[in-house]
Amino acid sequence: MKSYRDLSREELQQLHTQLEQEYKEAREKGFRLDMSRGKPAASQLDMQMDIMDVLSSSSDYKTEDGTDCRNYGVLDGIPEAKKLMADMMGVERPDNVVVCGNASLTIMYDTVSRCMTHGVLGSTPWCRLDKVKFLCPAPGYDRHFAITQHFGIEMITVPMTPEGPDMDAVERLVSSDQSIKGIWCVPKYSNPQGYTYSDRTVKRFAALKPAAKDFRIFWDNAYVIHHLYEEDQAELLDIVGECEKAGNPDLVFEFSSTSKVSFPGGGIAAMAASKANLDEMRKSLTIQTIGPDKLNQLRHVRYFKNLEGLNRHMRRHAQIMRPKFEAVLRVLEEELGGAGIAQWTEPKGGYFISFEAMEGCAKKIVDKCREAGVVLTGAGATFPYGMDPQDTNIRLAPTLPSPEELAAATDLFVLCVKLVSTEALLEEKA
Amino acid sequence: MKSYRDLSREELQQLHTQLEQEYKEAREKGFRLDMSRGKPAASQLDMQMDIMDVLSSSSDYKTEDGTDCRNYGVLDGIPEAKKLMADMMGVERPDNVVVCGNASLTIMYDTVSRCMTHGVLGSTPWCRLDKVKFLCPAPGYDRHFAITQHFGIEMITVPMTPEGPDMDAVERLVSSDQSIKGIWCVPKYSNPQGYTYSDRTVKRFAALKPAAKDFRIFWDNAYVIHHLYEEDQAELLDIVGECEKAGNPDLVFEFSSTSKVSFPGGGIAAMAASKANLDEMRKSLTIQTIGPDKLNQLRHVRYFKNLEGLNRHMRRHAQIMRPKFEAVLRVLEEELGGAGIAQWTEPKGGYFISFEAMEGCAKKIVDKCREAGVVLTGAGATFPYGMDPQDTNIRLAPTLPSPEELAAATDLFVLCVKLVSTEALLEEKA
Repeated sequence: MKSYRDLSREELQQLHTQLEQEYKEAREKGFRLDMSRGKPAASQLDMQMDIMDVLSSSSDYKTEDGTDCRNYGVLDGIPEAKKLMADMMGVERPDNVVVCGNASLTIMYDTVSRCMTHGVLGSTPWCRLDKVKFLCPAPGYDRHFAITQHFGIEMITVPMTPEGPDMDAVERLVSSDQSIKGIWCVPKYSNPQGYTYSDRTVKRFAALKPAAKDFRIFWDNAYVIHHLYEEDQAELLDIVGECEKAGNPDLVFEFSSTSKVSFPGGGIAAMAASKANLDEMRKSLTIQTIGPDKLNQLRHVRYFKNLEGLNRHMRRHAQIMRPKFEAVLRVLEEELGGAGIAQWTEPKGGYFISFEAMEGCAKKIVDKCREAGVVLTGAGATFPYGMDPQDTNIRLAPTLPSPEELAAATDLFVLCVKLVSTEALLEEKA
Repeated sequence: MKSYRDLSREELQQLHTQLEQEYKEAREKGFRLDMSRGKPAASQLDMQMDIMDVLSSSSDYKTEDGTDCRNYGVLDGIPEAKKLMADMMGVERPDNVVVCGNASLTIMYDTVSRCMTHGVLGSTPWCRLDKVKFLCPAPGYDRHFAITQHFGIEMITVPMTPEGPDMDAVERLVSSDQSIKGIWCVPKYSNPQGYTYSDRTVKRFAALKPAAKDFRIFWDNAYVIHHLYEEDQAELLDIVGECEKAGNPDLVFEFSSTSKVSFPGGGIAAMAASKANLDEMRKSLTIQTIGPDKLNQLRHVRYFKNLEGLNRHMRRHAQIMRPKFEAVLRVLEEELGGAGIAQWTEPKGGYFISFEAMEGCAKKIVDKCREAGVVLTGAGATFPYGMDPQDTNIRLAPTLPSPEELAAATDLFVLCVKLVSTEALLEEKA
């Protein structure tokens, strides 16, 4: 394809007229499609419904150590659920894991909230401090940024690279500023780019020397087993083990869940950390909860059994998801490859494709799509305060629509990209 | 029975020698029994296991309004669960109800935590204030007091009466002290006394004129349908409706759950309040959670169907619990009636019997029981900071043991009461 950059003003003008006509026709088709969130498709949920038959009125409801899952008791997860979630997260010892309720987001929120009201291992509660800051590698996950914003924590953007956050920036900031108390990370198949932190990045994280003793890495390992391919899978070092080795055992809080393994909202979620960190968490849990839903933990353990069971299950998910990712990537390549107006990532796992438009164009593209009936994640959502300074990043979530819907939606998306980009180029040349 | 008070020193001495011998023999029997918490018995759980068959791989997972309960979506409870929990709590409009996770304790904790970090409808966050106080009707529920203590909130004890808290004291304190921000209430079959607030008490609550605009009543309606008898059931006015009528719609947060209806830890929990209060809560929930476990909400709604279904189910629970309460009360009456050394409540519902020993005796009685193998709720636990100023109150939880175990345990308990009381009377006469 000839680069749009090489077109003359007249050619651009002509192209623009043609694209406007196409867009008008597309609008008239009356799409109604939501590509805004990373939701599993109904077909993914359908193929795993036998998990609902695992527990019945005639089941044994005792854990391996004899606890009746139907009654009170057990604060931090049944032993076999700790083992399963430790294996899933690649954490060596189940003792370093606490299994909670239905969402890792809630554990993250609770953890920040606890730091606000009670501090971290004896530190001043953050709500008593004049200023608390978090580093936010971006583009990143909007719900992370929403938590920190909710608690009035100042967010500092750190650039992302294919190896993870810019570690020079992270090290410099963390070691020099006592008010920096945390950093948000999605280390594997990152949201939205699908990048996986390199071994070198993980080791630099584990070796951080923060100015603040109560600094913590918030390590959201949301897509830890969410591969798209059987070969060509990303590998991530175990941060809990690396922090131990580096002599910084308390430096990290790791989170994960089965939201996109079993059911969003109907899954189980876990946190991994050092004994000291988990003991402090348990002190709060004693006050905060009567314990997690042990029946659902038991259901998950009996169904998945072990890491191999989880991986086998995720291969079935991948069979449904892979063609969708590939369909989007194929349209992007065919329609925009070489046009010089966009870049995108080609993830090997996770739930998103990250798209980079020309500067100042992301918001307009998302608006154009919505006007024609295709809802994308709001432009800017992948940055702190919802503000993408270059206005370039768009998060594509290809999992929910059917392949046919997805093809139509991506056709519309590239049309909008072309339309907005030619307008931008015409302005440049004006 | 002749009152112990009328015995001569010699008679008391003789009785004491005999009781010591009996206690020695009892200790040698080597009991191992836990009567410390309000836990359902295994037989209660066994008889309801068909709830686990309600959802299976072939079920329809759509709510009445078409939401797929297996995927993301719905922040504050599926509509039919709101309806069920509203009916259970006696709240008129399901719109005034939010259905959350597996425990009302967690909703209470989250609510206090949110008040600490974000205030109430625009008020200063409580963590920014020099002093925050809660009123604590006592004897009361230890886990309420644990939440307020955890957040450094000062607790002020208010006496309980058979009609509810001493409302003269409540009105005087609440109207005069801006730092008083809340009060803990268990309004029906109260923990531990089994008292139900009278209509007059509820109306006085609804008509409170607090000095603090951000004062809230924390109304833990934990035992709302937990009757022991089909006739002779306590009736409680709907506090949400009464607050509305009194022109104080935002004054109350009401909580309840199915922990002791379906499964402790495997149930569903709800909060009822005004639209303004719930809107503020939902603003937090958007950040805090991806939504509750809709599958478990659906399971509960499909199983219980409606209030009549809930009540029918609770009658089956009562059939198991009633004989246990009656067995304890019979032993207490036979062994201690007229002895002048103890009083106790005779609840018509809930999970506890409240026992009043002679002044300064509760702790010793509980210690004696534990030494002989019967664990009761710690003496003092029913008061703020675990300090019963008179050292008289003991909470008896008769639900978990079998009737046979319970008879043996109560025999041991009354023996310990007699032994410690004769010692106290001997000291008085010394």
